Amino acid sequence: MAEANVPEPGDRPRLIALDWGTSNLRASLLGEGGRVLDARSAAGGVMAVPERRFAEALLALCGDWIEAHHVPLIASGMIGSRQGWQEAPYLECPAGLADAAARLTRVKVDSTLAHDIVLHIVPGLHVVGPDGLDDVMRGEETQLWGADLPAGRCAVLPGTHSKWAWLGEGGQVTAFQTCMTGELFALLSLHSILGRLMVPGGASPAAFEQGVRLGLAAPDQLLHALFSNRTAGLMDRLPGEALPDHLSGLLIGAEIGGALRRGVVEPLALIGDEALCGRYELALSLAGLASERVAAGATTRGQWRVAAAAGLLEEAAR
Amino acid sequence: MAEANVPEPGDRPRLIALDWGTSNLRASLLGEGGRVLDARSAAGGVMAVPERRFAEALLALCGDWIEAHHVPLIASGMIGSRQGWQEAPYLECPAGLADAAARLTRVKVDSTLAHDIVLHIVPGLHVVGPDGLDDVMRGEETQLWGADLPAGRCAVLPGTHSKWAWLGEGGQVTAFQTCMTGELFALLSLHSILGRLMVPGGASPAAFEQGVRLGLAAPDQLLHALFSNRTAGLMDRLPGEALPDHLSGLLIGAEIGGALRRGVVEPLALIGDEALCGRYELALSLAGLASERVAAGATTRGQWRVAAAAGLLEEAAR
Repeated sequence: MAEANVPEPGDRPRLIALDWGTSNLRASLLGEGGRVLDARSAAGGVMAVPERRFAEALLALCGDWIEAHHVPLIASGMIGSRQGWQEAPYLECPAGLADAAARLTRVKVDSTLAHDIVLHIVPGLHVVGPDGLDDVMRGEETQLWGADLPAGRCAVLPGTHSKWAWLGEGGQVTAFQTCMTGELFALLSLHSILGRLMVPGGASPAAFEQGVRLGLAAPDQLLHALFSNRTAGLMDRLPGEALPDHLSGLLIGAEIGGALRRGVVEPLALIGDEALCGRYELALSLAGLASERVAAGATTRGQWRVAAAAGLLEEAAR
Repeated sequence: MAEANVPEPGDRPRLIALDWGTSNLRASLLGEGGRVLDARSAAGGVMAVPERRFAEALLALCGDWIEAHHVPLIASGMIGSRQGWQEAPYLECPAGLADAAARLTRVKVDSTLAHDIVLHIVPGLHVVGPDGLDDVMRGEETQLWGADLPAGRCAVLPGTHSKWAWLGEGGQVTAFQTCMTGELFALLSLHSILGRLMVPGGASPAAFEQGVRLGLAAPDQLLHALFSNRTAGLMDRLPGEALPDHLSGLLIGAEIGGALRRGVVEPLALIGDEALCGRYELALSLAGLASERVAAGATTRGQWRVAAAAGLLEEAAR
């Protein structure tokens, strides 16, 4: 892994890469080859910035980088949504890195700095699935391009809205599907009757596995199986500390069980947060599915590659 | 229907029947044969009463009835749960009205009134399903006994936690399953990303039907299909006003689709809120399932019958 938070001598900044999501804004200062020289984050996500003051949020987090280094800026994620800074129209699948690089949305950033600042937003992807349903992603396409997967691979990107994506030739994303697994877990834990019996802070691998097996066995009974998280607590089958992991397993199991009925290709590539990928790895193994984790840093690698393909790094070198 | 809110001459009060749920407390003053003489309700549900001041909530709503009529009190619903006034232990299925009548939990009500007041709480039911999962109900058992269904019937009681129940000989409840359909609808509408595109107050039968068909076709893909409620809005396939009905249809369709895979018996008996039963009636018909609505008032009819079987009405007549 060629990543570090401390710049080495001779490392010249080349790109500011922003992973700008719903809740958080993560900024990375990238050097030659996309090496991470420095990284910062703030709760400056699209839904967290008041009155669409995106320029302020950006300058507050890395105005000093911008002033000091005069390097191009690229952003991926929900910042390109209708609720974001400026809508970056979706690309239709199949779509590859070169298509995205040719369709960056340029936003001029108002600032008191002497030089012009332009933010380049990576477009999201749109697809109509075999079920006739629309689906969209924003940010995961850049992670997929950073993961550099061979044609034919199927990737899983766990999260608030998990994505299952299929890759074609030359890194093209040919199809994908979203599952609201992570958001449902948060909603049910925080706001539903299930949360009332939960005791936070515990960990129960056994309850997680029990939940996964339940979800895998009957993803079509999810509305019913969810209630068994409550009855497991009521009937003292599981302690309150084990209920969050039981629910997590149940939802992830139902997600994988549903995907199995659509058809997947092994080994699955797992991309994203370490702890969450660990959960999926275990759940996939319980489903008898092989998986491989993609090395951390897929987001900045993807952002670097899109910036390079768009010629942003040449401009900067001029 | 022998129901009215205005007492007729000669109608003597015989029973105060309380439908005491999580959010609301509904009180009915019943005359001969269970005829409803008067009815009142308050937001005095189990989760709405501060510091477990259940006696205060009861006396505030119908202390005047209690003082004036000296009739017995019966309650069904979440008031018998661990979070309620006093836990009324579950009966194991199969369980019938006579079993419940023999196992009422008696709670002495503290008051400044001259005569003793005792509240009789109907026990809930517990079952372990063919899937090995525990399930519980509190309140619906009393509605089922009020519906007076023949052996072999399958009943659907839509709600926050929908119940599908199977009836045996003599009104016994032989099995049942809960689905968290209503609670999920509320959570997703109020707290999830889906709610952001929704415009409340609209009605769209076409969007409801579209949602139902989607849920029926693939209940095992619910986690994915939920996201299509958002994309339908994003891609302008549906206006914001139609999105709540689309989500409602999707969840009800998935509930019915899941039930179909477990096996049901037609015609299904529909019990509960008029508007919600209307939605289920339509969704069931789209699934090709015949249903019949049970006449309104099943709760008070059930409470009357349990009270009669428990001998409470004889005591009162003494």
